[in-house]
Amino acid sequence: MNLKTDEFYSKADELIAAGRFIDSKGWVPATSGNFSARLSDGNIAITVSGRHKGQLQCDDIMLIDADGLSLDGKKPSAETLLHTALYRRYPDVQSILHPHSLNATLASRLFKTEVVLENYELLKALSGIDTHECRIVIPIFANDQNIPRLATAVDDYLDNYGAIHAYIIAGHGLYTWGNSVTDTLRHLEALDFLFDCEIRLYGVKQP
Amino acid sequence: MNLKTDEFYSKADELIAAGRFIDSKGWVPATSGNFSARLSDGNIAITVSGRHKGQLQCDDIMLIDADGLSLDGKKPSAETLLHTALYRRYPDVQSILHPHSLNATLASRLFKTEVVLENYELLKALSGIDTHECRIVIPIFANDQNIPRLATAVDDYLDNYGAIHAYIIAGHGLYTWGNSVTDTLRHLEALDFLFDCEIRLYGVKQP
Amino acid sequence: MNLKTDEFYSKADELIAAGRFIDSKGWVPATSGNFSARLSDGNIAITVSGRHKGQLQCDDIMLIDADGLSLDGKKPSAETLLHTALYRRYPDVQSILHPHSLNATLASRLFKTEVVLENYELLKALSGIDTHECRIVIPIFANDQNIPRLATAVDDYLDNYGAIHAYIIAGHGLYTWGNSVTDTLRHLEALDFLFDCEIRLYGVKQP
Amino acid sequence: MNLKTDEFYSKADELIAAGRFIDSKGWVPATSGNFSARLSDGNIAITVSGRHKGQLQCDDIMLIDADGLSLDGKKPSAETLLHTALYRRYPDVQSILHPHSLNATLASRLFKTEVVLENYELLKALSGIDTHECRIVIPIFANDQNIPRLATAVDDYLDNYGAIHAYIIAGHGLYTWGNSVTDTLRHLEALDFLFDCEIRLYGVKQP
Repeated sequence: MNLKTDEFYSKADELIAAGRFIDSKGWVPATSGNFSARLSDGNIAITVSGRHKGQLQCDDIMLIDADGLSLDGKKPSAETLLHTALYRRYPDVQSILHPHSLNATLASRLFKTEVVLENYELLKALSGIDTHECRIVIPIFANDQNIPRLATAVDDYLDNYGAIHAYIIAGHGLYTWGNSVTDTLRHLEALDFLFDCEIRLYGVKQP
Repeated sequence: MNLKTDEFYSKADELIAAGRFIDSKGWVPATSGNFSARLSDGNIAITVSGRHKGQLQCDDIMLIDADGLSLDGKKPSAETLLHTALYRRYPDVQSILHPHSLNATLASRLFKTEVVLENYELLKALSGIDTHECRIVIPIFANDQNIPRLATAVDDYLDNYGAIHAYIIAGHGLYTWGNSVTDTLRHLEALDFLFDCEIRLYGVKQP
Repeated sequence: MNLKTDEFYSKADELIAAGRFIDSKGWVPATSGNFSARLSDGNIAITVSGRHKGQLQCDDIMLIDADGLSLDGKKPSAETLLHTALYRRYPDVQSILHPHSLNATLASRLFKTEVVLENYELLKALSGIDTHECRIVIPIFANDQNIPRLATAVDDYLDNYGAIHAYIIAGHGLYTWGNSVTDTLRHLEALDFLFDCEIRLYGVKQP
Repeated sequence: MNLKTDEFYSKADELIAAGRFIDSKGWVPATSGNFSARLSDGNIAITVSGRHKGQLQCDDIMLIDADGLSLDGKKPSAETLLHTALYRRYPDVQSILHPHSLNATLASRLFKTEVVLENYELLKALSGIDTHECRIVIPIFANDQNIPRLATAVDDYLDNYGAIHAYIIAGHGLYTWGNSVTDTLRHLEALDFLFDCEIRLYGVKQP
């Protein structure tokens, strides 16, 4: 039985195009990063482990269920549980993108526990934000090769602090999500720009 | 009745091409920025709100009148009044480009009230400048979600200080204009380069 | 009589391709820069004034004689005399490229009178250099809208200090040359890289 | 007799594609860098001296034996001995890439003797590394135009310190290797990213 529907192939195409865009920005060096999109039946299209995200083929996108179990015999990313936990928490979220950008990595080294973004017009690119006069916090979690433990740390934070737009794993990369692949790309592009601003202003003596 | 003339479609094509160029430089992250061109009858071709400026289609360019009213039922950018105010003030201006570049954003954070550009050969890319031995001031206005109020702040400045080539909205982006889309792109490319110079020299101890 | 030979069109094609390459690096923002190549009869193919160097068409390359006089009625760059002076001095030089790169501009602001390059393997990309153990000096001249006076300042330096590979005009850009367009592009690519190194190391406290 | 097998042409194609990728990152300015891949008979496909590595043609890849002797009359890179020494030491290594990136050059100026990489998720892109909790050392050797002497310095280090993933030659560039061209490109992309991180964090006062 072929579980892969037209919807699967359509989402796979969106993730492949997203990969080319993200790689063109230099945000998925080597074979880093992973991307996913939720299907209407609750299963998830997600990138296979170990592929270059700028050169994805249809074969590099696999199908998992809502618990992260492979439905097609392929091996998903080690970080699949971080995806499934977000989909479980947020019913409206339809896509999750996790690149390893230089700016997310540097931000985690410089700001340690959170990146605070204020007074940028581009914050309006984040869902639900309609003015630059706001204070957006992107938490930074310690990196951990134990993914269930890392997923729990994220869950605990979200239980306590409510909805956020993204989080950083220290020395590792960014997780961001949205109601479509396009929405999530918009979040990604805006956040990387804003991290770049904060990093370049870091330590600069301002008048 | 179709208000869209050959001239409209020609200007739309110029704005679409300008968008691809501007996006290739990274100056319109997410769906930021807006662009316009004036038609010979005084109406204005302008980008529709919320589209990615590097991926514009003909359908993403709409028609407004000189007061910013939609003539085709589409929704123009929230910042349309900033465009119409400039067209009203400057009869020779035929195009306005508003990107959100990193350099304009950082310049506003570092220089607060104005960016002063002196002794750069590239200043000659600005209309009416024929020597590097000049002093060009690009004012920085506080960001404001109240666009009529922001437009008034700009108008007051222009009433007092006369003609300028561009202005920055703090934490937001650059507005620049010219006698054609090509002229305006030349202004944009030159100003972003010069902001980059000033930012990178900021705080560097010079011998 | 058509003065434009097959050799002219061949050189024009080389300059057009060089322009696309140079623009892809961001070294000719707005309509800055100018390029030339010498023909076997001593005349010179050179870019017309005021065109974007990344979008050159055949029509944007014109023909001048060894003294800089237009042979086809077009208007050459205001800086043509800097080209003809170099061709007169160096019989082997067949091409001159003058971009306005950020690194050349910043280097002139930081290093004032000369950029000194030492201990870089990439110095071997410069004609006649076969070891990193050398000291290459790139002089910086004050910018001047009076081109004959600027040409004289360059000539005086060359009379006193002998052969160099390039010079910078402060706040303006780089002039470099070579025995072919390809050689000159190699000089350009190497020098911009080395300026980038020196700028980024400037003011960094080294252990 | 034509020594060039289908395997040679296949490896040559891989090196040409690697060159285009590496050049798109700006890591082989001018005609710098050299690349090789080992064939199953122990001979080596390697770039010819003096070509631009972003514009390689099949003709720019030559055949040498395991001692670095030309098998086709072409002239290999002056640094061929550095390649053959690595192939001799590591039987599993099938490709060596040597670019001249800005980051490798700056890292050698700032860190002098070695670059230490710790706590980066991207370290997992290096063969045999499966956690960010490790300490990877990339040694820096003094540049030397005497390649046999430089090869001996590298060999002495490897005799004493065992297997490494890459080394830097000061003011010159990076050597990295892997079990295929693709593996080696992954090493290269990861290392350049990590050097970039370390350089940008260098001297920044961290909280």
